[in-house]
Amino acid sequence: MVSEGLVIQGFRASAVAAGIRKKDRLDLGLIFSEVDAVACGVFTSNKVKAAPVIVSQEHLAKGKGRAIVANSGCANACTGNQGLSDARQSAAVVAKELGIAPEEVLLASTGVIGAPLNMAAIEGAAPGLVKGLSPAGLESFASAIMTTDSFPKIAVFDGRAGEKPYRIVGVCKGAGMIMPDMATMLCFVLSDIALSHGSLWNALKEATDRTFNRLTVDGDTSTNDCIFVLANGLAGNTPLGEQEGEAFQGGLTHVLQKLATMVARDGEGATKLVRVRVRGARSPADALAAARTIANSLLVKTAFYGADCNWGRIMAALGRSGVGMAEERVDIFIGDEKIAAGGLACGPEPEKKATEIMKGKEFSVTVDLHQGPHEDHMITCDLTHEYVSINADYRT
Amino acid sequence: MVSEGLVIQGFRASAVAAGIRKKDRLDLGLIFSEVDAVACGVFTSNKVKAAPVIVSQEHLAKGKGRAIVANSGCANACTGNQGLSDARQSAAVVAKELGIAPEEVLLASTGVIGAPLNMAAIEGAAPGLVKGLSPAGLESFASAIMTTDSFPKIAVFDGRAGEKPYRIVGVCKGAGMIMPDMATMLCFVLSDIALSHGSLWNALKEATDRTFNRLTVDGDTSTNDCIFVLANGLAGNTPLGEQEGEAFQGGLTHVLQKLATMVARDGEGATKLVRVRVRGARSPADALAAARTIANSLLVKTAFYGADCNWGRIMAALGRSGVGMAEERVDIFIGDEKIAAGGLACGPEPEKKATEIMKGKEFSVTVDLHQGPHEDHMITCDLTHEYVSINADYRT
Repeated sequence: MVSEGLVIQGFRASAVAAGIRKKDRLDLGLIFSEVDAVACGVFTSNKVKAAPVIVSQEHLAKGKGRAIVANSGCANACTGNQGLSDARQSAAVVAKELGIAPEEVLLASTGVIGAPLNMAAIEGAAPGLVKGLSPAGLESFASAIMTTDSFPKIAVFDGRAGEKPYRIVGVCKGAGMIMPDMATMLCFVLSDIALSHGSLWNALKEATDRTFNRLTVDGDTSTNDCIFVLANGLAGNTPLGEQEGEAFQGGLTHVLQKLATMVARDGEGATKLVRVRVRGARSPADALAAARTIANSLLVKTAFYGADCNWGRIMAALGRSGVGMAEERVDIFIGDEKIAAGGLACGPEPEKKATEIMKGKEFSVTVDLHQGPHEDHMITCDLTHEYVSINADYRT
Repeated sequence: MVSEGLVIQGFRASAVAAGIRKKDRLDLGLIFSEVDAVACGVFTSNKVKAAPVIVSQEHLAKGKGRAIVANSGCANACTGNQGLSDARQSAAVVAKELGIAPEEVLLASTGVIGAPLNMAAIEGAAPGLVKGLSPAGLESFASAIMTTDSFPKIAVFDGRAGEKPYRIVGVCKGAGMIMPDMATMLCFVLSDIALSHGSLWNALKEATDRTFNRLTVDGDTSTNDCIFVLANGLAGNTPLGEQEGEAFQGGLTHVLQKLATMVARDGEGATKLVRVRVRGARSPADALAAARTIANSLLVKTAFYGADCNWGRIMAALGRSGVGMAEERVDIFIGDEKIAAGGLACGPEPEKKATEIMKGKEFSVTVDLHQGPHEDHMITCDLTHEYVSINADYRT
């Protein structure tokens, strides 16, 4: 079953079960641009960077790319020189089959940290991977990069630059070790738009900051986070005017936002998606810090799970967040229901209504600090028994 | 059953089931010093401070105290002016029964945030509370302050100042919302030693910093944290010399360390107590930040639970901790078993041995950054299904 929405001109994709860690599951994917594409990437801010992150940063130096090779089952992180050599060899093997230069190949890996990459599996699978390339292959690719994800994550945006229609397609994976900071989990974005490297870079930075950098599942930033964007120009549009540039930026943000929301919804063990909004903050940094502290609090996240309208935990998280606040000014809402006003309980009736809202699969928490004009948000999920099960048994 | 070890000259204690939130469980406790005592306190750094914290800070202004009233079932936090007035009234009611001034009463509360204190219950129980005072009452007191604790927490140290023996007894509660910062959960320390307010204060700050400020269960700092220390001087010792001062400091640290370790062992749902040591750090701040980031990582804590020697998660936590590090210099040990050397896996044999160690109820993780001479540690516990159960259902 391939939905037509996943086709984008000039790009082909494929996936195979290479047996990198387990047998008989798709674990190696390839995206190929038939023509030269402008390419950008943003990467994890974790000081421990996986080998594919380091090699891809090198390969992106010229701002171009033709192919993305991504595997699940092994993160190729904490693998030293052997890991770097394995990553380079992976790029070389696939480049040879594709007839392009190794530096035109970008790499991404996800899975267990500290274990070596299964090079025999990758080398054995490379010819079939290239042979399998198809315009309709993105869905298989999205499946191949899943680890603890429970569904493949794809988002599409259709725009227009002057007369010319263009498309943005994003594919991503992620469910745990999620608190991107300057970057994200694995995410690949393709577009047929024509634009400069500088414009693409600015759009990517801005869109990432608004979306994946506002997402947390468990507060742990991965060693392998990256987003790659390839734009092959086949839409044939003339250079983007200011408005068109903004529209592209908006489209890219839309795609990344949809993917980030899917990651939170698919957060390991998650049963609820929660948007934590903070407004009335003294500074932008305060707004983000407050939202992030609430969104990462174990006690807040377990209360979400239990649909317990325990707003005292939100107050306690605010109080330790380091932001400018006065307890007696804080209002808290679940959805549109105000449960705390001026730092005090609004009573059992609003709490009852809020509890009903919290029983749903998706709701928002809004905190108004009444300290200034700034606001921000984080997307998060609840903390559940299943999260513990998944992560206590991950490697076994 | 009262152990003789809990008696300390000049102090009496009691506890009653006042019905503050639930019926028929001890929920209100009193400690009384028969003579004037030098008193100090350290308090939560959370900007949202409970009413008893604010009132006790006022009452400690003169450096003296005669009584401590502590309740479970209600934190009296996020309760505004009503909460402050309730706290003052609690002190007044008990002071009247004891025949002392209200300012000589210190207050501590723990339980649900955002709900008002049940003053009828406290006023009704005050006469019986005072009547029940007994030299052997500390054990009941320790039970009365428990919330999700599964056992009462008491530690004793016997010292000598010159010719005179003295004793330090500490009582504490805490299992969740535990990441003290400048202070701790509820903890009460009594001594019959004679010493100045300044000496007591210095000893308390130092001991707290080394013990409770190195403890985390879930990374959430409470609104109600406090330690009170009362020293009544009945040991009759002469002023402490330098060595004796250090010995007292050591004794106090010993008592607080034992209590902090009990809190981690009794961490909500915890099955394992883990000491995370970081050495070879570039600065003291780096050593603490690295230890704290590892000790709070959900992925590290779930791996502890699953006895999964997943050291890659420790590397990932280090990498996001912001400390000076070079991946290729990092060594990691579980107990004495080295599982990563120079940032790389030591292989399946050491991992197998480390996994066996992790199946125990208590073990250490040591990280050597090889960046400098500084070291620090954190005490933590694993993150389990039971933690989620306790906190998803806390108020129901």
